[in-house]
Amino acid sequence: MNRPAYAAVDWGTSSFRLWLMDDKDTVLAERRSGEGMTSAAKTGFADVLASHLQAVEAPADMPVIVCGMAGARQGWVEAGYVDVPASLPSVLKGAVRVEGVGRDVRILPGLAQRDANAPDVMRGEETQLLGALRSGTGQQLVCMPGTHSKWVHVSGESVTSFATYMTGELFDVISKHSVLSHSLAGAEAFDADRPAFVEALQAAFRAPQQISNLLFTVRSGTLLHGLNPTDAAARLSGTLLGIEIAGGLSSLQDIPSVILVASGKLRNLYEGAFSALSLTYEGIDADDAVRQGLSAAAHKTVLA
Amino acid sequence: MNRPAYAAVDWGTSSFRLWLMDDKDTVLAERRSGEGMTSAAKTGFADVLASHLQAVEAPADMPVIVCGMAGARQGWVEAGYVDVPASLPSVLKGAVRVEGVGRDVRILPGLAQRDANAPDVMRGEETQLLGALRSGTGQQLVCMPGTHSKWVHVSGESVTSFATYMTGELFDVISKHSVLSHSLAGAEAFDADRPAFVEALQAAFRAPQQISNLLFTVRSGTLLHGLNPTDAAARLSGTLLGIEIAGGLSSLQDIPSVILVASGKLRNLYEGAFSALSLTYEGIDADDAVRQGLSAAAHKTVLA
Repeated sequence: MNRPAYAAVDWGTSSFRLWLMDDKDTVLAERRSGEGMTSAAKTGFADVLASHLQAVEAPADMPVIVCGMAGARQGWVEAGYVDVPASLPSVLKGAVRVEGVGRDVRILPGLAQRDANAPDVMRGEETQLLGALRSGTGQQLVCMPGTHSKWVHVSGESVTSFATYMTGELFDVISKHSVLSHSLAGAEAFDADRPAFVEALQAAFRAPQQISNLLFTVRSGTLLHGLNPTDAAARLSGTLLGIEIAGGLSSLQDIPSVILVASGKLRNLYEGAFSALSLTYEGIDADDAVRQGLSAAAHKTVLA
Repeated sequence: MNRPAYAAVDWGTSSFRLWLMDDKDTVLAERRSGEGMTSAAKTGFADVLASHLQAVEAPADMPVIVCGMAGARQGWVEAGYVDVPASLPSVLKGAVRVEGVGRDVRILPGLAQRDANAPDVMRGEETQLLGALRSGTGQQLVCMPGTHSKWVHVSGESVTSFATYMTGELFDVISKHSVLSHSLAGAEAFDADRPAFVEALQAAFRAPQQISNLLFTVRSGTLLHGLNPTDAAARLSGTLLGIEIAGGLSSLQDIPSVILVASGKLRNLYEGAFSALSLTYEGIDADDAVRQGLSAAAHKTVLA
């Protein structure tokens, strides 16, 4: 095994991922857990990080580069924001050092859009973009799905503007806490080619002003047509993705296609959605992108 | 005091209202409580009704006419649905008698729209419409705000189609269970002319496809611009009303104005919203409407 040079950490609201890397940016080991910001704020960020570093037998003086919600005000150490328009490499200058942990740990800042009519923030996605778009040229529109999906306009290596869509969180709160919860009880996993998903997606994309009525048809479909729980979940998901994509694309002008940065199930779902809407896109793996972004950041900060 | 002839009951999901009426449809007494369907399903519908009848000293053999969620499957006695297109007077024929309560108690049915692409249901609003539109002529578009707002197309005395918008419930679940809850903590009551409400209303009405981004700006407005909790609540409310009104009006064709059936704070909010969007409307008091509808129903059923 090559000698470990640094650890790269993507520390989100509800997830923690650590990669042990050598100096050629090869992955030597990986850790994943649910100890995101929300959990770590209670148990202690330093202890969570130390336990994962110990598990991969990291050397005591090995540096660590971190992105994501660990840098939020309610996180470990506040890493602030870089304002857009922002060149992605300039984000690295805003890295904040965590004191008193016995090794060099730095947290990358997020991006802020201080427009009075469209205030917005991201933390973690800027590092994914840094990894995904290092050789980016021209205007690009990037879709980064998640609890809070980001649609980002990039020009060369700069983020010019972006917008957050609460798709994942809306699915969660509506499915758990609204009258639709009765319709979804017992739902199983579904694929992106499921007709209930595709039809709801297309309906919401075509008529976004009907969103809060389309949501209610999940309930009335159960009452009147015996809509099954999995189709109910697919309809809710399709409706929320349809409205997100309609919104994200509404700022699309001379850009030929969308870059989709996603992994796993979410990637499958969005690829299915883009295909069902006849949209061309280029897919980039989000896990690879954030790791590459962290590696680029490590070489300019903790390894410099 | 005139002799009581019947009781009229509007029994919703979360509220119970009873009016003691004479045979000229004059109100002799009124009761309001939070013992809606959800609560009464646990404590017993018969007991709740009996306690309120006793409180107004109703004669033992006096009949009762009921509309609303008491007639739902999970309510007292299921009163089914009349399918649209439906003449409003035909609803009366579907009234279901409650057995074993020692007096004549009947529950009015709801309306169902069994369209596969736009399934929808209402319970209680059909009785409001019966009261509001007894002399209605021509095509009308009726807006009935609430937890589940209804937008109803009426032709003469018939309901031709309708759509439910989950506005009130979305406000509730998003304000309580999403990341926006931090922004709204400590919010106070606001008026419909508050700039944060009006601006959000107009933004959502103009660009409904941005709904899930506009919702997130409540959070980012707090983070970046110190948006205060009451303005955050006003912005959330305005966004959800804007999207509802955009949806409700999208089916408007040759109809000159909207009829707004609402009471109290909700009426003020929707009147303010309609004015801010330069929409002409005619306001009808929802409490008066449902009582008049119940009276019309009583004369054709329990008093016939």
